[in-house]
Amino acid sequence: MNTEVLTLNEERNVTLTTYIQDCGEGFGCVAKRPAVLILPGGAYQMCSDREADPVAFAYAKAGYHAFVLRYSVMDDCTWPNPLNDYEQAITLIRSHADTWHIYEDKIAVIGFSAGGHLATAAATLAQNRPNAAILGYAVTSQHVQACNPNAPETISAVDRKTPPCFVFATRTDSMVPINNSIDFMRALSDNGVAFESHIYAYGPHGFSTCESSIQDTRPQTICSRVPHWVEDSIGWLKDIFGECTLEGMTDPLCPAHINDNYLDYLTVDCTFAHVMAIPEAATLLAPMIDALIAGLSEQAKGMSAAFDDSNGTSMVSDMKLRDLLAYGKISDDELKALDNQLRQISVI
Amino acid sequence: MNTEVLTLNEERNVTLTTYIQDCGEGFGCVAKRPAVLILPGGAYQMCSDREADPVAFAYAKAGYHAFVLRYSVMDDCTWPNPLNDYEQAITLIRSHADTWHIYEDKIAVIGFSAGGHLATAAATLAQNRPNAAILGYAVTSQHVQACNPNAPETISAVDRKTPPCFVFATRTDSMVPINNSIDFMRALSDNGVAFESHIYAYGPHGFSTCESSIQDTRPQTICSRVPHWVEDSIGWLKDIFGECTLEGMTDPLCPAHINDNYLDYLTVDCTFAHVMAIPEAATLLAPMIDALIAGLSEQAKGMSAAFDDSNGTSMVSDMKLRDLLAYGKISDDELKALDNQLRQISVI
Amino acid sequence: MNTEVLTLNEERNVTLTTYIQDCGEGFGCVAKRPAVLILPGGAYQMCSDREADPVAFAYAKAGYHAFVLRYSVMDDCTWPNPLNDYEQAITLIRSHADTWHIYEDKIAVIGFSAGGHLATAAATLAQNRPNAAILGYAVTSQHVQACNPNAPETISAVDRKTPPCFVFATRTDSMVPINNSIDFMRALSDNGVAFESHIYAYGPHGFSTCESSIQDTRPQTICSRVPHWVEDSIGWLKDIFGECTLEGMTDPLCPAHINDNYLDYLTVDCTFAHVMAIPEAATLLAPMIDALIAGLSEQAKGMSAAFDDSNGTSMVSDMKLRDLLAYGKISDDELKALDNQLRQISVI
Amino acid sequence: MNTEVLTLNEERNVTLTTYIQDCGEGFGCVAKRPAVLILPGGAYQMCSDREADPVAFAYAKAGYHAFVLRYSVMDDCTWPNPLNDYEQAITLIRSHADTWHIYEDKIAVIGFSAGGHLATAAATLAQNRPNAAILGYAVTSQHVQACNPNAPETISAVDRKTPPCFVFATRTDSMVPINNSIDFMRALSDNGVAFESHIYAYGPHGFSTCESSIQDTRPQTICSRVPHWVEDSIGWLKDIFGECTLEGMTDPLCPAHINDNYLDYLTVDCTFAHVMAIPEAATLLAPMIDALIAGLSEQAKGMSAAFDDSNGTSMVSDMKLRDLLAYGKISDDELKALDNQLRQISVI
Repeated sequence: MNTEVLTLNEERNVTLTTYIQDCGEGFGCVAKRPAVLILPGGAYQMCSDREADPVAFAYAKAGYHAFVLRYSVMDDCTWPNPLNDYEQAITLIRSHADTWHIYEDKIAVIGFSAGGHLATAAATLAQNRPNAAILGYAVTSQHVQACNPNAPETISAVDRKTPPCFVFATRTDSMVPINNSIDFMRALSDNGVAFESHIYAYGPHGFSTCESSIQDTRPQTICSRVPHWVEDSIGWLKDIFGECTLEGMTDPLCPAHINDNYLDYLTVDCTFAHVMAIPEAATLLAPMIDALIAGLSEQAKGMSAAFDDSNGTSMVSDMKLRDLLAYGKISDDELKALDNQLRQISVI
Repeated sequence: MNTEVLTLNEERNVTLTTYIQDCGEGFGCVAKRPAVLILPGGAYQMCSDREADPVAFAYAKAGYHAFVLRYSVMDDCTWPNPLNDYEQAITLIRSHADTWHIYEDKIAVIGFSAGGHLATAAATLAQNRPNAAILGYAVTSQHVQACNPNAPETISAVDRKTPPCFVFATRTDSMVPINNSIDFMRALSDNGVAFESHIYAYGPHGFSTCESSIQDTRPQTICSRVPHWVEDSIGWLKDIFGECTLEGMTDPLCPAHINDNYLDYLTVDCTFAHVMAIPEAATLLAPMIDALIAGLSEQAKGMSAAFDDSNGTSMVSDMKLRDLLAYGKISDDELKALDNQLRQISVI
Repeated sequence: MNTEVLTLNEERNVTLTTYIQDCGEGFGCVAKRPAVLILPGGAYQMCSDREADPVAFAYAKAGYHAFVLRYSVMDDCTWPNPLNDYEQAITLIRSHADTWHIYEDKIAVIGFSAGGHLATAAATLAQNRPNAAILGYAVTSQHVQACNPNAPETISAVDRKTPPCFVFATRTDSMVPINNSIDFMRALSDNGVAFESHIYAYGPHGFSTCESSIQDTRPQTICSRVPHWVEDSIGWLKDIFGECTLEGMTDPLCPAHINDNYLDYLTVDCTFAHVMAIPEAATLLAPMIDALIAGLSEQAKGMSAAFDDSNGTSMVSDMKLRDLLAYGKISDDELKALDNQLRQISVI
Repeated sequence: MNTEVLTLNEERNVTLTTYIQDCGEGFGCVAKRPAVLILPGGAYQMCSDREADPVAFAYAKAGYHAFVLRYSVMDDCTWPNPLNDYEQAITLIRSHADTWHIYEDKIAVIGFSAGGHLATAAATLAQNRPNAAILGYAVTSQHVQACNPNAPETISAVDRKTPPCFVFATRTDSMVPINNSIDFMRALSDNGVAFESHIYAYGPHGFSTCESSIQDTRPQTICSRVPHWVEDSIGWLKDIFGECTLEGMTDPLCPAHINDNYLDYLTVDCTFAHVMAIPEAATLLAPMIDALIAGLSEQAKGMSAAFDDSNGTSMVSDMKLRDLLAYGKISDDELKALDNQLRQISVI
């Protein structure tokens, strides 16, 4: 392994610590690896060592290259300094993809607390976004400004291009209220972004990997399931990135978006509501929907009510068009033809 | 084990299946056990066997008595029939606490999909509430009426007396949108109710215990972490109820409420914002807060801004009074005196 | 689920308790299931309830039909009464394979302590052997006769037809010394039988499923890994039997024998030593071995010493012929021809 | 973290790679840490990188300092060169206990395959033994000399001073037969040494940490439980060493020896057979045993036969004297007096 501390900004004391693993034939091992960029917490007043090395080791064990960014803090934390530090770090890492044997489109950020805020900013506001984000007891809205008066809340910045997120926290966190995580999930949901989330029953703020050498792990202090986030986040990254094997990366099992609503045009994998909101598409679909309802069996007759979206909670509004039409007798060819027509219709 | 099918309502075909385990000296085992009441799903059109026996076995293995309620469905599901079925079942179970060797204040409901809706109704609207609720891909708001036109959404019914909840679902559930779970969590959070939650990256609706004999468990179909909800919910119930041991129940590790806001009076374990909203209490506290701010070190000076709650996101508003005052020089006696004074102040 | 207590022998008070799960289309579920036959412990003086129901629940949860045999104890335990009870039970179960929807060749015994002794007897001495055996802190040699003066030790009875075994115990068991498990494994190894084994660092005898309602589970009493045997044994049974899915059983991942030495004739999947011990086969193979050694690269030249079996620890003696010959240039056709010739050679 | 490659022997190309973690107040973390010394495998022809860094990361994650010893191989592997390399490494590490912040009596070796052979040699033959040994598919007897013609088998070297061992392997390992592990366990058992062991149903040799970046982990290749050895060995080390917490090491939960037979004198925690083998002690105990048998209840009368050790399998021979006498009416004072007397009796 090659560990080194690279100075990104001498004035603001910004550094990138590398944990680059051996690769290639000589090692009898994988040719390239995915990577994680770790953003420790510390209320923008410090970068906590407790959320640096231990996290790097966990991901190194799982086969990832790891990087720790110590971003601008204290007087230097004025926004967007920390975000600029991130941009500089991810750009540097991606530009070394070849020499460091990194899959440049398989790089996740992992942020804790204030570092979690920076990770959500990277996932929503950055030019050079990560491919996934792991967010530990992250500040997203409440208390952002108590940490960093100029920094933006990031929930409203979540968009259709936000990468998949893994969100974890303890419900009783008394430093960062749990709504920071819940409301961020809601925004991910509203934008069709893939995510996984674990909110554990109880435990303090700032537990990092929850090893006994870092955190008081007695059951009266912290719930026994909290340490699972480490293995679960690694498992989740495999679902999102694919598995790093001796034959290369396998195909991901979980797509980054739960439907095609994030695209700039329509497809049959957009949701019914998303498609019907575009008048041109609604006109195109109308006869198919009528046929679909007409063809419903007596048993499923009540389902036609499901299409009534007057109160915004239509049962089918969130279904993909593909799944919805499958209830009728649409052929593969018809579906393909429809998909082609929809792809001509752009979403502003 | 004693398994029996009790008829609760012949007309509506409502039954309670019992899985009552051996207890007592003769068994060389525990004297009493906690219990679970299982509410299978099925869109209020049926009670799915897939979410009945297999769930009972999982909890029986963990030492619980189990009950499966097959509530009113199809034409009989008109609200509040299913809720009445629940009331009848829980009342019956609690009235048999002695003969069946049940801890009557350690009974959790476990509901799936539409049964999850019924479980949230039990936790929020019932006369005879459960002591905890486990909610699997539960319908709480969206699609309630598509299943059962007269049934209420339950999110707005969450209150300070709602018991602790364990919420799980898959993010890609195409039958019950994930917002049903997220918004329910938000309501629990807003009411100070303890909860744990696991939203898994991907998988279909209705996976039950996710055993291969019930659900296609291939990785392309469902995320490998989904089956963890079973063990995790059992672990969580132990945190909430205590552990059932040969010497009786141990003390719970996780309280049912994260602060005392749920009480009808104030205490030092209420949140700052909750206490300050009562004018009488605000007056009482004013000098202490002033002293606290005055006593803050130079370093923490900025913190006084934290008390400014003009935008509703004050950093201290969610802190317990006890924790907040600990930053000053309040003595144990002073805290106790304050607590006594607060307990005289009632919250309507 | 259908639970019933069947009397197998009224005089000796032998019963079989059934936990037969629903099957078939109506259930929207699996058509048939594998099964376990549980043999509780109790020093042949009793059949412990602690090792009956709780074990049945664990396997029922995993999709298995379960049966508990309460065999002859106390004055009735004279050998071979308990073994006859087993024979009667397994015969009854297999004869009901159709009505009870059981895969009749996917039935495992699970025995604890003295019940573990009976399980090893079933696996080695019975007419009607099980398809796998799970052995918990089983008595196999030491103390057999202290429990049951007429009962045989079972280690010397292990043979090539013994089914796969899963062996677990605690190293500090003060009732049944750990050599009972170690020596049984050695016998399985010597007979080419597949097995898995977990010996945990510390803990008492008789922990059953290690649930807190059965066993003091505090860390000072019992090692935290002990409860893993339950899930691990279920995972192992899936490897041995295949997985019970909605489409039927999948193929097993782990064969019951690690090579073909258990057959009554030779194959290329027998070990080198096993084949060479038959003069007719040794003659047949001689030229191939010479060619193999001659063809070894300079680098691997030392390996020819590996063939020298004078001290019985030749490096290749335990290799399958197929794997060994793969080091040379043998073609698929030649291998197939050799296999056909070997299959003509019988092993007494 | 401080990673460095120290040359131990330039001529034989022996190196020690360090992974020394931050410690002390400045880190807001533990003051000292336990350590592991990793011995990669490679048939004494190489030191495999696959069993070096990945193992170090796993233990670094768990809070351990890690060291990788690349010992003498190929022409330099003549015994006792590799053992001398180990002695040099452990001596160096222990001599730096203060500067590197290591608990010098909490150092485990972890060896794989041929490195596992070296680890067993360290545990049995070295001057400067480790405090625990983790042995992965280790060569202990069969094939030792095929790897290293001068090296000794280590099973017969196991003695009462051998430190606790954690033994793991796959049952189907075709390179190192499973008897290497089974027979080593038997020797540990015979010498009263604490151990834990996991033999997994199937899988190839040399899987290291079983991460997908190192090993083909498809279920048809390797049993899904194999990767558990990593977490299980870490859990076991905590049982043996105690837990490394912010307040220092906790007390171990599992003693290094299962009884006091390993001492040079007798105690009441020696086994009955061990004590009775010393004539002086047998004379001392005789009246107590007579009283014990006389006092047995009618029900337990048969137990007196348990004391008959004519066939070496007496039921009580492996019981600690303390546990055995507890069946009688011995007082704490009497037990203490007996213990004092026994401690005067030396075992050669």
